[in-house]
Amino acid sequence: MKDINSLGLKIENGQFLILDQEALPQSELWLKCESPQDMIDYIKKLKIRGAPLIGVGAALAIAQFAETGAPLSDVLEWSHLLKSARPTAVNLMNAIDRMISQTHEAPLNADILVRRAEHIFNEDVALCEAIGNHGASLIDDGDSILTHCNSGGLATAGIGTALGIIRKAHEQGKQIHVYADETRPLLQGSRLSAWELHKLGIPFTLICDNMAAMLMSRRKINKIFVGADRIASNGDFANKIGTYGIAVAAAFHKIPFYTAAPQTTIDWNCKSGAEIPIEERSSSEIRHPLSPTEYQAYNPAFDVTPNNLVSGYVLDSGVQLEWKKRAQLSI
Amino acid sequence: MKDINSLGLKIENGQFLILDQEALPQSELWLKCESPQDMIDYIKKLKIRGAPLIGVGAALAIAQFAETGAPLSDVLEWSHLLKSARPTAVNLMNAIDRMISQTHEAPLNADILVRRAEHIFNEDVALCEAIGNHGASLIDDGDSILTHCNSGGLATAGIGTALGIIRKAHEQGKQIHVYADETRPLLQGSRLSAWELHKLGIPFTLICDNMAAMLMSRRKINKIFVGADRIASNGDFANKIGTYGIAVAAAFHKIPFYTAAPQTTIDWNCKSGAEIPIEERSSSEIRHPLSPTEYQAYNPAFDVTPNNLVSGYVLDSGVQLEWKKRAQLSI
Repeated sequence: MKDINSLGLKIENGQFLILDQEALPQSELWLKCESPQDMIDYIKKLKIRGAPLIGVGAALAIAQFAETGAPLSDVLEWSHLLKSARPTAVNLMNAIDRMISQTHEAPLNADILVRRAEHIFNEDVALCEAIGNHGASLIDDGDSILTHCNSGGLATAGIGTALGIIRKAHEQGKQIHVYADETRPLLQGSRLSAWELHKLGIPFTLICDNMAAMLMSRRKINKIFVGADRIASNGDFANKIGTYGIAVAAAFHKIPFYTAAPQTTIDWNCKSGAEIPIEERSSSEIRHPLSPTEYQAYNPAFDVTPNNLVSGYVLDSGVQLEWKKRAQLSI
Repeated sequence: MKDINSLGLKIENGQFLILDQEALPQSELWLKCESPQDMIDYIKKLKIRGAPLIGVGAALAIAQFAETGAPLSDVLEWSHLLKSARPTAVNLMNAIDRMISQTHEAPLNADILVRRAEHIFNEDVALCEAIGNHGASLIDDGDSILTHCNSGGLATAGIGTALGIIRKAHEQGKQIHVYADETRPLLQGSRLSAWELHKLGIPFTLICDNMAAMLMSRRKINKIFVGADRIASNGDFANKIGTYGIAVAAAFHKIPFYTAAPQTTIDWNCKSGAEIPIEERSSSEIRHPLSPTEYQAYNPAFDVTPNNLVSGYVLDSGVQLEWKKRAQLSI
């Protein structure tokens, strides 16, 4: 494969590397990905994460595997295994389906898979760019913006979705301030978004997730942008746990609440949020490390926000203030 | 002083000991309190915490100091210093004002101070008992109850306030389940409430603060009980950061939201929540320990819930479904 380069993954002299997001921000450690199994492990441990990026990463892992000369049956088998590495984000399933779909082209081979994976990578960069440009129009000078989890360059092949919008607004010279939720239990906000915002020179303040409502009541937050892991065909969407509570508080305080995602995050086969599978992770992520292991904990990794709590969807095709069904969309 | 014994502090053979709540649940460490300065340090570091308990602890520290033969002027000076150890909870100020108030009795001396401190301790035990009995009447068999922070035996001299109510209901044989918010940043829920609930054999599940709204939307929580650090004269109340967001989500989902507190938590001189000082603590409690220290963080330790989001107040005088002004209260 050609060399490619993004914040969270790269191909360098034929070697596929991913930035270990579990180790950030204290160390910037690049891990070799040498097989689909490596990619599955990295996805499950959240060493690579972000709905768009795991789709891109899985596509590249399949292409790399095909390039090693693996027979097509093995490529297909590993593709199916990769698909189930994380259940909530639909980009992973979408990317793999696109990788292995049979068309009128020649039968699937390594060349086709590499071309497709590179296309998925480049497409994600372009989708982020479009989302950023559309979304930045919603941001005004002086805005104080809340975001949750990480939806930046670490979550995509490009500049990100919600955080990409914030970045674009900043690059346009708008004076903004970001409140970044730390995002328990895995702290994607205080580890990853903070790391990105700091690198980009965007002023930000970290808060605990439970402080956002208080800041809203004091009018310290006037807009909210979050990413999405799957948007159902009715506009309900799944995102990192805690997003729903923010949406409820935003509605209560009448603060605009936007979600940003590329078309690859939309699941037209999913009727509503109730159909989105929610990954449940180990209780050890919540239990105090020194607490008795018999303390029970519940650890859903995502929640669902219903369409009626969303002020607008920032898609690569533009900003939609109301969710439109597929027939009405240009995409 | 006579021997006294509670979950979070005790006097044993004249020695005043507090249970180090910073070290729980991994170790049960009793720290000697030998001076008002010790008590100030312990309060600031949250080694002793809980609005009622710090009031009781401060009273005992003053009495102990007087018993050592300290001159009255020193006792008064340390009393004023103790009062400012934590600004939000009013029980501390209330307890100290009661300790050093001049009455028609003889001038203040060690005997009077010891008697008063012992009275404040015993009174808190009785207030908790009354709150528990009144509040348990609000709990039904099969209830699934959310609580936040720790308002149990570790927060008071008695059985606690919100957690004391839950305990009473459990002891009455009601089948209940508790969801305990971990309560960032200092994890009073996952460290302290979990420790208490486990000891008491009450079934519970730990969750991150940002999961409560999702559980409400799925009807997994049907009642909410929290403590209070200060209730203003209009019924607005301050409590651990995160309480306000829970109240907003509870109102949105039409789930009863109760706060429980003894009369010593009411500040009749405070007109509304806007007048309650909110302690801001170090950003290091939020920043990832390995993150660059230039990452800015905001760390308010409390927030204010307005009276219109409260379904009921469980006081030692009974349950009030609407806040009543002092003139209408029997207390």
